[in-house]
Amino acid sequence: MKIVVDAMGGDYAPQNVVAGSVDAIKEFQVSITLVGQQDRVEAELKKYSYPRGMVEVIHAPEVVAMDDHAIASIRQKRNSSITIGIEFLKKGGYDAFVSAGNTGAVVAASTFVLGMIPGVDRPGIGCVIPTLKKKFSFMIDMGANTVSKPEHLLQYSKMARVYAQAVLGIDKPSVGLLNIGTEEGKGTGLEREAYKLLEDREPAFIGNLEANEIFTGKANCIVCDGYAGNVALKVSEGLMESIAILMKREIQKNPIAILGAFLLKTTLSEAKKSIDYSEYGGAPLLGVDGLVIISHGRSSPKAIKNAIRSAKREVEHNILAKMKEEAVR
Amino acid sequence: MKIVVDAMGGDYAPQNVVAGSVDAIKEFQVSITLVGQQDRVEAELKKYSYPRGMVEVIHAPEVVAMDDHAIASIRQKRNSSITIGIEFLKKGGYDAFVSAGNTGAVVAASTFVLGMIPGVDRPGIGCVIPTLKKKFSFMIDMGANTVSKPEHLLQYSKMARVYAQAVLGIDKPSVGLLNIGTEEGKGTGLEREAYKLLEDREPAFIGNLEANEIFTGKANCIVCDGYAGNVALKVSEGLMESIAILMKREIQKNPIAILGAFLLKTTLSEAKKSIDYSEYGGAPLLGVDGLVIISHGRSSPKAIKNAIRSAKREVEHNILAKMKEEAVR
Repeated sequence: MKIVVDAMGGDYAPQNVVAGSVDAIKEFQVSITLVGQQDRVEAELKKYSYPRGMVEVIHAPEVVAMDDHAIASIRQKRNSSITIGIEFLKKGGYDAFVSAGNTGAVVAASTFVLGMIPGVDRPGIGCVIPTLKKKFSFMIDMGANTVSKPEHLLQYSKMARVYAQAVLGIDKPSVGLLNIGTEEGKGTGLEREAYKLLEDREPAFIGNLEANEIFTGKANCIVCDGYAGNVALKVSEGLMESIAILMKREIQKNPIAILGAFLLKTTLSEAKKSIDYSEYGGAPLLGVDGLVIISHGRSSPKAIKNAIRSAKREVEHNILAKMKEEAVR
Repeated sequence: MKIVVDAMGGDYAPQNVVAGSVDAIKEFQVSITLVGQQDRVEAELKKYSYPRGMVEVIHAPEVVAMDDHAIASIRQKRNSSITIGIEFLKKGGYDAFVSAGNTGAVVAASTFVLGMIPGVDRPGIGCVIPTLKKKFSFMIDMGANTVSKPEHLLQYSKMARVYAQAVLGIDKPSVGLLNIGTEEGKGTGLEREAYKLLEDREPAFIGNLEANEIFTGKANCIVCDGYAGNVALKVSEGLMESIAILMKREIQKNPIAILGAFLLKTTLSEAKKSIDYSEYGGAPLLGVDGLVIISHGRSSPKAIKNAIRSAKREVEHNILAKMKEEAVR
């Protein structure tokens, strides 16, 4: 298996990307193709020992910055690690592309270079959600497509079911529609129409789901427009960070609390692990005709390694073929 | 000061509402008018001692259920505690209305009975947000108006500034627009047009704000459409609850962790206090021509008491008159 990795993607590239890729090679026995500024990538690679035959470096002189305009960046930087990496995936002989770079640029380049799979009109970013039940849930779209139509949500639903079944191992995944109330007729025109369409065409549809139910595991798959999904994702991130900062502040005020926190350390890190995005390994970009995984811009080496693990799982479970089959049903 | 309280509103009504109202009378020296099923309300009142002259009970035979359809409920239950309570506020001689009942019904009845203030087209639910800075932020709309237009967001911005200045004591409040990226041009058509309108007409506008920045205090006021606001609010609620459940589970596995948690107890409850909605006291419904406070459906007596405190502050700071002045500017 050969995974193409955007060596220049993310706030800590190429260091974290190369470190995570090397770990992935050792742990998952995958071949990695690092795309980026050759001298910088090779300088990083020199720091590690790894089976030589498992790494190849492809030079891409340009780098899309995290704050570059998505569409403009792929037009102006045709030789970026994102575009060249995706072009290699398209060409064949490679199985998936992983990037922690500019999300908008990865979505735009993937859509442009790979095209959409038949039956799907818009790409969607999926997200594996930890829940209170033992199973994970899968939510889509987290921001690829900010102006969704009802049929996009139906298409997401089909792809989400395939992903949940194949990758998350959920036997018969249910689908919920994110909405601001549980009753039919709630929400904006989009949600009302999407409700009807899902009720009509999606046998796994179980109705509306409110945003406070996302983490309960009530629905295995949750579909929403990219704007709402992005707000949900980022609020969760922001809240988690704020709670951590707040706790630290409060604990430092009180010596007994410092001792308490020390005794809780293992437990806290276990709890953190179960909600930490870096454990799950990136967000699949679904709907494009190729396997693309988007990792967080602040990805640690572990997050990169786990994003590569996600890519590997998608390849092993042959999800692209399964989605193509499901999407035209 | 006379505050009208919906005695039948919320999951634990009339018990929690009456308990919180009695506490508010003692603590804040306000007169309370409880609207609801007289016998049930009086039976609850009998449990407490309080200055008799400070409470009046007004009979309302009907109760809007928490899951009743908002518009239908105000048409079909004309003698509900919500409608009668708001009609008393409208009639004069009363200063504010507080309800932990069906949010949609409170919004609909308030809009219908009180009407809008000149210059404001749609009601918006505001929310006081704890932040990492010492000041609170104020976010609007949390779900009164799910299909917003750019001008609604400008109107919210004006009202939010008045609230932040008068009630939260922020000298020159800044305004941010919730969006899925910080650069101009991000988001759906609504956000792009609202950005231009705010830039043009709102001197306090500081640009886009991503959802992970809500709790940082970067903007004193945050405006958004009711759908996104509702998602943000409910995701936060759901995540907090899930974290609490998860922590409890993990702690119970390990005796050292139990001791750690015990030593952390005071600190945890301090931290919880700073993010607990019941401490802040309800969400103001802004834009309608009267002071209306919506409290959480699961309100504890403390949450009711604090919602009454919020109502008192709004009256004392004369925010209705100030908003009327600002809205037509």
